[in-house]
Amino acid sequence: MKVAIIGVGLTKFGELWESSFSQLFVEAGISAIKDANIDGKDVEAIFVGNMSGGRFIDQEHISSLIADHAGLNPIPSTRIEAACASGGLALRQGVMSILSGFHDIVVAGGAEKMTDVLIGQSTQTLATAADSEWETFLGMTFPGLYAMMARKHMEEFGTAREQLAMVSVKNHANAKHNPYAQFHFDITVEDVLNSPMVADPLRLLDCSPITDGSACVILASEKRAKEFTDSPVYITGSGQASGTIALHSRKSIPVVDATVNAAKEAYKRANMEPKNIEVAEVHDAFTIGEILAIEGLGFVDIGKGGKATEEGITQIGGKIPVNTSGGLKAKGHPVGATGVAQAVEIVLQLRGQANGRQTDADMGLSHNVGGSGGTAVVHIYEKG
Amino acid sequence: MKVAIIGVGLTKFGELWESSFSQLFVEAGISAIKDANIDGKDVEAIFVGNMSGGRFIDQEHISSLIADHAGLNPIPSTRIEAACASGGLALRQGVMSILSGFHDIVVAGGAEKMTDVLIGQSTQTLATAADSEWETFLGMTFPGLYAMMARKHMEEFGTAREQLAMVSVKNHANAKHNPYAQFHFDITVEDVLNSPMVADPLRLLDCSPITDGSACVILASEKRAKEFTDSPVYITGSGQASGTIALHSRKSIPVVDATVNAAKEAYKRANMEPKNIEVAEVHDAFTIGEILAIEGLGFVDIGKGGKATEEGITQIGGKIPVNTSGGLKAKGHPVGATGVAQAVEIVLQLRGQANGRQTDADMGLSHNVGGSGGTAVVHIYEKG
Repeated sequence: MKVAIIGVGLTKFGELWESSFSQLFVEAGISAIKDANIDGKDVEAIFVGNMSGGRFIDQEHISSLIADHAGLNPIPSTRIEAACASGGLALRQGVMSILSGFHDIVVAGGAEKMTDVLIGQSTQTLATAADSEWETFLGMTFPGLYAMMARKHMEEFGTAREQLAMVSVKNHANAKHNPYAQFHFDITVEDVLNSPMVADPLRLLDCSPITDGSACVILASEKRAKEFTDSPVYITGSGQASGTIALHSRKSIPVVDATVNAAKEAYKRANMEPKNIEVAEVHDAFTIGEILAIEGLGFVDIGKGGKATEEGITQIGGKIPVNTSGGLKAKGHPVGATGVAQAVEIVLQLRGQANGRQTDADMGLSHNVGGSGGTAVVHIYEKG
Repeated sequence: MKVAIIGVGLTKFGELWESSFSQLFVEAGISAIKDANIDGKDVEAIFVGNMSGGRFIDQEHISSLIADHAGLNPIPSTRIEAACASGGLALRQGVMSILSGFHDIVVAGGAEKMTDVLIGQSTQTLATAADSEWETFLGMTFPGLYAMMARKHMEEFGTAREQLAMVSVKNHANAKHNPYAQFHFDITVEDVLNSPMVADPLRLLDCSPITDGSACVILASEKRAKEFTDSPVYITGSGQASGTIALHSRKSIPVVDATVNAAKEAYKRANMEPKNIEVAEVHDAFTIGEILAIEGLGFVDIGKGGKATEEGITQIGGKIPVNTSGGLKAKGHPVGATGVAQAVEIVLQLRGQANGRQTDADMGLSHNVGGSGGTAVVHIYEKG
């Protein structure tokens, strides 16, 4: 399989009080259209990832809202939802729509406006990604779920509390070079260990923030892509898998089956192996998430993610730089946009446009998770 | 294009207090799998339409929930949302996934559990399909929006109040023969005209009910379909379009542009014209909706839908029987499921399995609308 990304666009990530949901999407979309050097009229369809317009902004049917506000009626517009993996799945549906022959040029984007509700309500809305009858109803929230995964990983594999902190330290260091990131300050391991406890062992600086933002890419068929650019980035692999929605049903708590299975499909379609990947954006909603990801994706053996982080292999300049954008932790995590923002970062890396955080990569991967692992989606990218 | 439907399944539509959301989906899915004579292991992906799990049952990420509860992990599961057109779009994404070469056999389904909240809350949640800033915030709800469309249609085209009522009378008569329908009683034009006023000119018996329910179809590539059946029904056309989300922005209030544009694409893909269609399921969330639909789909000229209804052309035995299932009005309208339930009815009609409501049709059409016309999706079906 081969679908081109010919344009990318982002809004600033952060607390964007002055922008509405649709303004965010339109801003990222226009950036991507300009970057692709196409006209709005060239766009044949929109696929948009969004987790919870219904609860965050009292607006479902956001596919129609954004097509309308972007001036793109009457083209088809479709919203995809899979909690924090909504963006990754929107990208995949966009890819499918092109490979199906329905379309040649589409926008795949994502957006979330999370700060229009009180902070307690956003935590409650994010918790709708867990099993409402068996987890949320009993008071469980996501820091709690990931804390249990962290605790179990520490117990089974000897992962150190400091190693979790190192994920956050690295991602903050990377975000400083990303003008779109929410946070632009360095932190130390001590800062993480002294930050307020959220859910033992996870502290405030282990957790991604509440973020407004949007990301868009322009996808094109191989044939049409050549009209607009000589050097597209190609998506050559896509994998998606489901795992149990409730954490307690999982075969193994510190192994995210959905990640393993989604990666397997993506590697197979791209005819690649983990060792071929040179840069990756992975789902670090919590620091333990990045460790689970690099293990599930096969970059390191199961149980070795903490040690590998300590050894620096995921730093820029390391064997496999991870979350050069700053990751969800420091770039910010507007849940519906995240999966697409990961694709944007990989494209910038493969094009050599990542400025102070540039790696020397021709092949990249993005990894987006919904809930505690109920959904995972992986994409593989190659320089054209 | 050609994708087969090899199995269909429904739950009873109604107030299903004893069933959870995921039980509904699993029940419809198992019926469809049995009907297709396949094994659960043959299913490669799930596409599910759902409007507002987040607000109706405090559960987003329902794609993961249902894959899990159906025992279908680790296959990909994807939720599509476009208000009341969610089911129709899930069907379209399922079709694309097969034509893209990603999958050969998938479930396309829809489900909604609307009765777990108070009735005022369901009206409020349904209103999230309208423009939240310019319509809902000011107190607008869907009966109000459709009432304005009805009033304008009456004023511009001379449509009579009684003609609206005739839509409802016909659909109740059809639903009596559909064991899955929510209502099984006849009504008269007088009953409609004497029912409580909801939003002038629309009365209670002009409005579809609040419904729990689920519908699923099994889609298969042309090649694989032949392993399981000699007589599949094929989807040969699919069209989707966006219109303004707010009613007041529309060029013409009583013409739903999205329907016209979606139909155009579907007819083109199927290489068909309106006159070829022999049975249709259309979006009669309110009686005026069916009149707008038969006009927008080209079965009758714009403005002539009321008169055509009075003349009986949309009755069983008429030129183009419409809503033989009972339609949204009398079969019920579990919003996320509706678009798929329409496909189920057309398949039953083309297979000759529609019992007391059987027509003599080899070609059918389904038409599903989101909001007041922000989204429309049309599918065309042919007997294999």
